[in-house]
Amino acid sequence: MAEVNRQWRLVRLVEGLPKPEDWRLEEEPVPDPPAGTFLARAIYLDVAPYMRARIAKVRNYVQGVQPGEVMIGGAVARIVASRAAGWKAGDLVVTDFGFGWQDYAVLRPEAVRRVDPALAPTETWLDVMGLNGVTAWFALFETGALRPGDRVLISAAAGSVGQLAGQLVRIAGAVPYAVASTAAKLAWCRELGFEAGIAHRDCSDLAGAIRTLLPNGVDLYLDNTAGPIHDAVLQNLAPRARIVVVGTVSLADRLGRPDIGPRFFREVLVARARIEGFLVLDFEKRWGEAWARLAELLRAGRIRTRYDIARGLERTPEAFLRVLRGENVGKQLVQVSEL
Amino acid sequence: MAEVNRQWRLVRLVEGLPKPEDWRLEEEPVPDPPAGTFLARAIYLDVAPYMRARIAKVRNYVQGVQPGEVMIGGAVARIVASRAAGWKAGDLVVTDFGFGWQDYAVLRPEAVRRVDPALAPTETWLDVMGLNGVTAWFALFETGALRPGDRVLISAAAGSVGQLAGQLVRIAGAVPYAVASTAAKLAWCRELGFEAGIAHRDCSDLAGAIRTLLPNGVDLYLDNTAGPIHDAVLQNLAPRARIVVVGTVSLADRLGRPDIGPRFFREVLVARARIEGFLVLDFEKRWGEAWARLAELLRAGRIRTRYDIARGLERTPEAFLRVLRGENVGKQLVQVSEL
Repeated sequence: MAEVNRQWRLVRLVEGLPKPEDWRLEEEPVPDPPAGTFLARAIYLDVAPYMRARIAKVRNYVQGVQPGEVMIGGAVARIVASRAAGWKAGDLVVTDFGFGWQDYAVLRPEAVRRVDPALAPTETWLDVMGLNGVTAWFALFETGALRPGDRVLISAAAGSVGQLAGQLVRIAGAVPYAVASTAAKLAWCRELGFEAGIAHRDCSDLAGAIRTLLPNGVDLYLDNTAGPIHDAVLQNLAPRARIVVVGTVSLADRLGRPDIGPRFFREVLVARARIEGFLVLDFEKRWGEAWARLAELLRAGRIRTRYDIARGLERTPEAFLRVLRGENVGKQLVQVSEL
Repeated sequence: MAEVNRQWRLVRLVEGLPKPEDWRLEEEPVPDPPAGTFLARAIYLDVAPYMRARIAKVRNYVQGVQPGEVMIGGAVARIVASRAAGWKAGDLVVTDFGFGWQDYAVLRPEAVRRVDPALAPTETWLDVMGLNGVTAWFALFETGALRPGDRVLISAAAGSVGQLAGQLVRIAGAVPYAVASTAAKLAWCRELGFEAGIAHRDCSDLAGAIRTLLPNGVDLYLDNTAGPIHDAVLQNLAPRARIVVVGTVSLADRLGRPDIGPRFFREVLVARARIEGFLVLDFEKRWGEAWARLAELLRAGRIRTRYDIARGLERTPEAFLRVLRGENVGKQLVQVSEL
């Protein structure tokens, strides 16, 4: 066991794109777990786009991280000392949010799930078997009301939610189409089973490209970006189209300036379309249902995954910024200690 | 019986606000009804905002009226000659769309409903007991998922759908708030039981005014207008807010130009709000359910109505244009013959 616990603490709330100096690495003694808790050491730390909103100055839907606090984040970790009945040193656990960017955390049993590597590979517990899995699942099958045959457009399709969602769409008998930034990402989407797609950085007429791809319109749009891609989709709605607003990453650099652009409410009315905001936390009591199905699909080899793993706690902010810049290939994790 | 059937025929498809010369009044012999049909003479003709989209050049959700055709519209009418079993001269009927702006029409029994003046006053059959009733009903109770206690904001609240919707909101144990153009219309809304409201022509900061009126946000917004009122509401969403897009009248003068303005998809995500387009035709098979309830409410004196009745078929285009300019006070009808 290391003598110290290294921790990334937030320096300031952030406007615009975060910079490496928005966190500082500090050291503390490794804590002793109080009765009813255990001490766990991180193996994989999660870094994900949602974390940006937790450190932003603007209003968000949950309590953010305050300056001086350890940065929020989930982890796959191994228990190193336990004072909680039923949990022992060596057990693998995962937390979705409550570990933090640090080597060690004191955790309560209610805050973790057991990781069973026989059920699904260890790294998937921060991805398909974690928040990405339940996000794709409930966004498609609950808010999105996916039905067989639906033509489903997914933005940020090569991202960790998008790539899983595309495969789930195919499994459910519907047809996934990708919007991704580059041709290379689009090629990966095609490998995963997306029917076709659009590389939007090379595309001067996104609305026209969607019309060519889907002349009868989009039945379901998994909106991970907002902004110009959303605008292009709203000009291509099939009757009863559903738009699930999962993320608004294209708006994140706006520093509080309003998002000005075309609105399409006549199109929404004519198509009787539905635009709905989605937060995976609203489905928290039902996450287990989705994970059970996702574990079956992983074991059956029906879901492919890809990981981009940085090594060393010191590289955590850098890995997070790679995600925000779209440079990662596959789900980004940080490996902090050996499995 | 008159010798001729006067008919308002469309001269051209319309861009922007229609003008009186977009229709011309023609005369034809009164037709003889073929077997299985009857001839009816109009008493009240309907004029309503939806008709504008039926004569517009831009794409719409249903087949429009073509130049040379009789203008679309519903009517309360009396049968003057019948060749349909079970229907006799003197019977009162109502059609929701299929009469047209004319003195006489040949109708099939499937296209009409019987008007029972003992059930509800004759003029209500083109209002509460007609399209306005089912629009307010299904927009609130189906697409809007109205629940007791909801704070419901209604735009064009003094319009024929808005004034009924406000009363239904109150009856259902929720709290209606009005947005109307003028203080005079707002006063009428208050008389009908709206809790409070905003006269938007006198208001320089609509978003701020809504915030003052509803500091905890809007639970349900019945959007009859789109445009700036919609924008102001989207800055004041309660968690799980529902926005039902019933009409987009503020966009109707745009002549195909895009509607450019602020978008609020981050707000939609954070509130997990739902924006949904609404077309009353989608609920056609269930209209009878709503009319049965509305008739009970009318008979119990729980719904107030107000009518603005023009006299004479020749004034039909003028009456329609009054509606489009918002000059009518109460539901606009045209009385063509005596009851």
